[in-house]
Amino acid sequence: MPEPSVSQRKELDSGLTVIFEPMPWLKTASASLLLPVGSVTDPEGLDGSSAVLAEWMQRGTRKMNSRAFSDSLDALGARHGGSAGREYTTFGISCLASVLPEALKLIAESIRDPRFDQGEFPGAQAVVVQERASLADHPDQRLFEKLGTTFFSSSHGRSPYGTEEGLKALTPTIIKNDYWRRVSPKWAILGIAGGLSWETVIKAAESNFGNWKQKGSANPPSVSVAPRTYVHSQEDINQVQIGLAFETTAPNSPFWYHHVIGLQVLSGSTGSRLHTEVREKRGLVYSVGASTRALKDFSYVVGYAGTKPDRASETLRVVQDELSKMRKGINKEELERAKTGLLSSLVLQGESSGARATALTQDAYLRGRSRSLDEIHKKITVLSLDEVNQYLFALPAPSPTVVTLGPVRLQGKIETDRTLP
Amino acid sequence: MPEPSVSQRKELDSGLTVIFEPMPWLKTASASLLLPVGSVTDPEGLDGSSAVLAEWMQRGTRKMNSRAFSDSLDALGARHGGSAGREYTTFGISCLASVLPEALKLIAESIRDPRFDQGEFPGAQAVVVQERASLADHPDQRLFEKLGTTFFSSSHGRSPYGTEEGLKALTPTIIKNDYWRRVSPKWAILGIAGGLSWETVIKAAESNFGNWKQKGSANPPSVSVAPRTYVHSQEDINQVQIGLAFETTAPNSPFWYHHVIGLQVLSGSTGSRLHTEVREKRGLVYSVGASTRALKDFSYVVGYAGTKPDRASETLRVVQDELSKMRKGINKEELERAKTGLLSSLVLQGESSGARATALTQDAYLRGRSRSLDEIHKKITVLSLDEVNQYLFALPAPSPTVVTLGPVRLQGKIETDRTLP
Repeated sequence: MPEPSVSQRKELDSGLTVIFEPMPWLKTASASLLLPVGSVTDPEGLDGSSAVLAEWMQRGTRKMNSRAFSDSLDALGARHGGSAGREYTTFGISCLASVLPEALKLIAESIRDPRFDQGEFPGAQAVVVQERASLADHPDQRLFEKLGTTFFSSSHGRSPYGTEEGLKALTPTIIKNDYWRRVSPKWAILGIAGGLSWETVIKAAESNFGNWKQKGSANPPSVSVAPRTYVHSQEDINQVQIGLAFETTAPNSPFWYHHVIGLQVLSGSTGSRLHTEVREKRGLVYSVGASTRALKDFSYVVGYAGTKPDRASETLRVVQDELSKMRKGINKEELERAKTGLLSSLVLQGESSGARATALTQDAYLRGRSRSLDEIHKKITVLSLDEVNQYLFALPAPSPTVVTLGPVRLQGKIETDRTLP
Repeated sequence: MPEPSVSQRKELDSGLTVIFEPMPWLKTASASLLLPVGSVTDPEGLDGSSAVLAEWMQRGTRKMNSRAFSDSLDALGARHGGSAGREYTTFGISCLASVLPEALKLIAESIRDPRFDQGEFPGAQAVVVQERASLADHPDQRLFEKLGTTFFSSSHGRSPYGTEEGLKALTPTIIKNDYWRRVSPKWAILGIAGGLSWETVIKAAESNFGNWKQKGSANPPSVSVAPRTYVHSQEDINQVQIGLAFETTAPNSPFWYHHVIGLQVLSGSTGSRLHTEVREKRGLVYSVGASTRALKDFSYVVGYAGTKPDRASETLRVVQDELSKMRKGINKEELERAKTGLLSSLVLQGESSGARATALTQDAYLRGRSRSLDEIHKKITVLSLDEVNQYLFALPAPSPTVVTLGPVRLQGKIETDRTLP
């Protein structure tokens, strides 16, 4: 059995941060490179720039056209991809550990020295336009879009897929300028995990990113949340899609793990409260759940349920009741089950180089440092029932923003701000 | 670096087949239990029986009610789930290797001795009804449903989600009788992979399933395919969903790996022909792909693309051109890239206990035996360009069944049966 791994970290001369976690029992390795370029900092009126930039950057390097670039990665047997989110864009690779340095070289060239082939631009733009258009036929995805724009008053509510108008307005010159404006090694993070050594990793990172000079910066605005509200979008679809969102404990808070345990009890397993009350006992939905979304210095809980129109009001009521009941605390058995479930998930995560590379990178972005699995394990194990319950007792009454999509607006009072019964 | 693992296999006295692959470097283990109970053998007019049965079976054992059952699995930190497909239902567990025997005991009780609590039936039924209803708002999923019913003339075309009428007609008695009719250890397969020993595995399997006596059997009908056709379903949605299906080399054929390599060149990576021609060069879609679906003694290729109405005809034409061009063979570089990509995927699969447990079980069902990763590796490595191309040259012209969903029927001749230009 391998021992818990400790990660190593170095900031290169260029400013790029490298983090590595050895997994010496693996034949594979994964890398995740993060650039803080996301829809939050898309230029005004050009929503979707990050998405088109991410797509265009994957179409060749100065030395290689798009076809040669993807053939070269295929020749290494590397799975790769990249996509833009709200706060950042990530590029990922998974491959045999022995070829990771070569694969990283290719990805590095596409990031430092993208080809920006004019002939590839219309295709890159069209692909994002198609992706955006496909949302129209996915009510559950549209619900989350709408929930974002309703919940945030800052640009954090923008869709990572952009807007139709924003995407249309983009030109090769705009995207190239945007690249120079926002991309910089200083804010880039490279997380690597798998069956290779720190020496190999740092050598590959130095040779590919050590002398990278580029001075972009994109300062994301502070998060701001809109006044709580209920918004319904009348649509001729079959189900009612219900979404809700409310602010919660931030990633860097000393109460983060208290929150994590609470959410696990609420929604972390098939025996969780939401699953039991909404799905098992009442058969109101096929899927229901709540999860935490983390931004820098801010996080929020998003809840979701999709159901038939005649069950929608009851579904929302039961979900909100369960949210309120969290403030009465959890019991000893729930705490133990939640801990066991979370610790078991950590072990599973620790067996996948892809999961670890992603976690190292996200941690460095959200927290300024990457936590080891061992650290997380200890933080969860040590919490007592009393500590978790003190945290839960002190929570404010949940006052979520609620969004519904579907054939009927929910009747009765939608309690977006209420205290315990 | 661990050596390639060799699996062990035993048929218990009860008839249940156990297959195990050791992954001694892992702290976790996974199990996948397959019962040949799927929509193909649902009773006539009761489409959806398998789905409701799978859901109801997960709600407690004779000794434990539903709540106690899921709490017990949560207390072990086990991720678990079960669902019914076309030919079979599988129940899966992933957990720490040390608790797998205990988790398996719980799952075994729910399978041999389900509680079949009357009070839980309406919930189990309602959940499947909700899942079925949610399809109405997912055009891409509905496309695959429609493609299945159009492509097959045998019951293999039925939806695993059942029909509205079928689900409504179900009663507790019908489902219980159906359980006794179809479930039997003789046809059950248990695949386990992870960080434990064969001794531990076989002891757990014997004690839980060794004396299981039950005599159900469900003989699936032979697969039969309907005459090729083009079917359009007029719907007021934004995109046109395009699906196509055609028969291909069966899993047990000596040409299986020839097919696998061909499909990898067609659609296995971002440099593949479909991805390049449809997405990269023309920006026709956000996602396009073709994959193989295997049934017992039969397999078929399913292709998919979703696009805007004005690009739909071109999209289908390009996809069909690429299918036809496969019959002209592939080149040396494509062969090498395809092999490298496939072998790299095998290594990744070999690092996940969940992926291996599932593959062991499916192999035993589809092929009557489970292949080791090493065997697959050798079979792929050994194929020459000439061998693959002889196979591709000899392929009949693809004559797919085509289904579209959306605002416009495709114009012009939809070539469901054509020869090379």
